[in-house]
Amino acid sequence: MKITFLGTSSGAPTRHRNVSATAVQPERGKPWVLIDCGEATQHQLLRTRLSPLQLSAILITHVHGDHCYGLPGLLASCQLNGRKAPLTLVGPHAIWRYLQAVIECTEMRIDYPIEFIPVDGTLDLEAAGFRIQACALSHRTECWAYRLEECEIPLQLDVQRLKDEGVSPGPEYAQLQQGRDLQLPDGRWLRSADYTRPSRAPRVAVIAGDNDSPERLTGLCADAALLVHEATYTADVLEQVGPEPQHSCAAQVARFAESRGIPNLILTHFSPRYLRKARRRGDRQISEIKTEARTHYSGQLQLAEDFACWLISRDGLLLPL
Amino acid sequence: MKITFLGTSSGAPTRHRNVSATAVQPERGKPWVLIDCGEATQHQLLRTRLSPLQLSAILITHVHGDHCYGLPGLLASCQLNGRKAPLTLVGPHAIWRYLQAVIECTEMRIDYPIEFIPVDGTLDLEAAGFRIQACALSHRTECWAYRLEECEIPLQLDVQRLKDEGVSPGPEYAQLQQGRDLQLPDGRWLRSADYTRPSRAPRVAVIAGDNDSPERLTGLCADAALLVHEATYTADVLEQVGPEPQHSCAAQVARFAESRGIPNLILTHFSPRYLRKARRRGDRQISEIKTEARTHYSGQLQLAEDFACWLISRDGLLLPL
Repeated sequence: MKITFLGTSSGAPTRHRNVSATAVQPERGKPWVLIDCGEATQHQLLRTRLSPLQLSAILITHVHGDHCYGLPGLLASCQLNGRKAPLTLVGPHAIWRYLQAVIECTEMRIDYPIEFIPVDGTLDLEAAGFRIQACALSHRTECWAYRLEECEIPLQLDVQRLKDEGVSPGPEYAQLQQGRDLQLPDGRWLRSADYTRPSRAPRVAVIAGDNDSPERLTGLCADAALLVHEATYTADVLEQVGPEPQHSCAAQVARFAESRGIPNLILTHFSPRYLRKARRRGDRQISEIKTEARTHYSGQLQLAEDFACWLISRDGLLLPL
Repeated sequence: MKITFLGTSSGAPTRHRNVSATAVQPERGKPWVLIDCGEATQHQLLRTRLSPLQLSAILITHVHGDHCYGLPGLLASCQLNGRKAPLTLVGPHAIWRYLQAVIECTEMRIDYPIEFIPVDGTLDLEAAGFRIQACALSHRTECWAYRLEECEIPLQLDVQRLKDEGVSPGPEYAQLQQGRDLQLPDGRWLRSADYTRPSRAPRVAVIAGDNDSPERLTGLCADAALLVHEATYTADVLEQVGPEPQHSCAAQVARFAESRGIPNLILTHFSPRYLRKARRRGDRQISEIKTEARTHYSGQLQLAEDFACWLISRDGLLLPL
């Protein structure tokens, strides 16, 4: 399970960070899922090996421009590049209204099918080998987090039980392990489900939109190996700015991840005021975000960077790619 | 008068060319004018010294996505960066409908004034030191070309005539040269306009949108030092593609510029099929566009490149910056 950051800035792009977009791929296979699509996401994709023609689903967290202004251009370029395959689009109703309005006003032509699925708490969708669910966040407009869980975990045989049934190793074992039921020479049926179990837990990543209340994610983060969450500010800047924009500071998110025992946390969506390197007195540095989170969180902690790519290994470790 | 290309690809961005946007600046002063605003124009601007806060007017040629999908994001970033100054937006009515729809659907907030001026053949506007006029082109949607003419040409004194009036060199000369009328000690008024004339012809650049009929530009190009026009294809590709997209090939534009005696021609808006370097048999090269145009045009000919910056000198030469 691979996560590629395509945009990690809040509000406006900077020279080093584009606005929000995150790609999630299964470990094998080319189809992938895009979460949010800020302006110039298609430009960022030109600098990766991710193909828009292999994109299965786009999940939009909310309708603010820095999370969706790249959608019309990406869809238009898919058309120009000959896409025929259907595409699933998930998001608040406002996203569909926005896209329909742009299509209509700008004479945009899309011949491939786009299936829009309005997000709600009952979302349960399969795309690119992931089971996708959602929960509502707390932001100044309707906003969602998405949970992506691996669908197909290889099965492990209960060899002892098969031996007890008198079944010897051979093609029958392979059939059961592939999930197919088996008829024995004596006419009895063995159900694959009774003689196998998943060889490991499915990998789960939760990618959240803008949110001032991380605790909203408690249910969605159950068994999650990774949480990707905004940390737009440090606590002192959040206090200066005030609560109206409804963003989180690093400390809030870190405390939540610690309290839920989430083993890996990647922070993103940084205010452009945080620079790579301070140049003048009073400049804020991006490292302050990490320092603040670190004091509240003991797991594996990272700050997202554009084009950084992370693997969640089968045993749930977060590894750089 | 400076021209900076911010996007030179047709339809979709490539790794080396963004979609359409062109900046025009007067030789002095910071205010500038943007013609078209394809997706990620604000990202391109981050790599130049042009400030969105100094942008006086945006002129959109037509409503197709590769010419306007960067507009909402650029305007939103101006807001985030504290712009207060009014901005003029010129284009077909459809552009205003598009922008209003995006603002409404995505809860975009713009506090600085945007004055929308629908373009028609009577447009006569002053912005950033340019007089701006327009003419209609021939494309599959309403599309326009814009003419930018320098407004303030330094005045030259008719010294002989002043001497004949008995006025000697001194502060009176400066007053007349600054365009202010002068009262003589004997009570007579000398009108500045009677004793001065422009020191040179104003520089004129015409920046055209998508167009399959360059001859439409005949009137607008009168006395133009420079024409910037699309040459989406070479003639053979135009024949393969057919006339429906309503684009020009290099030969058509070159023949027009030659027939009107336009001294400088920059071609742009190239189909992504034309590569910098051919890699495989059958690949098309961008140099083919120039070769085709060259056979029909004897003036100064250039192909636009992203971030290339050209100066039109006071004597009408096109110089690289």
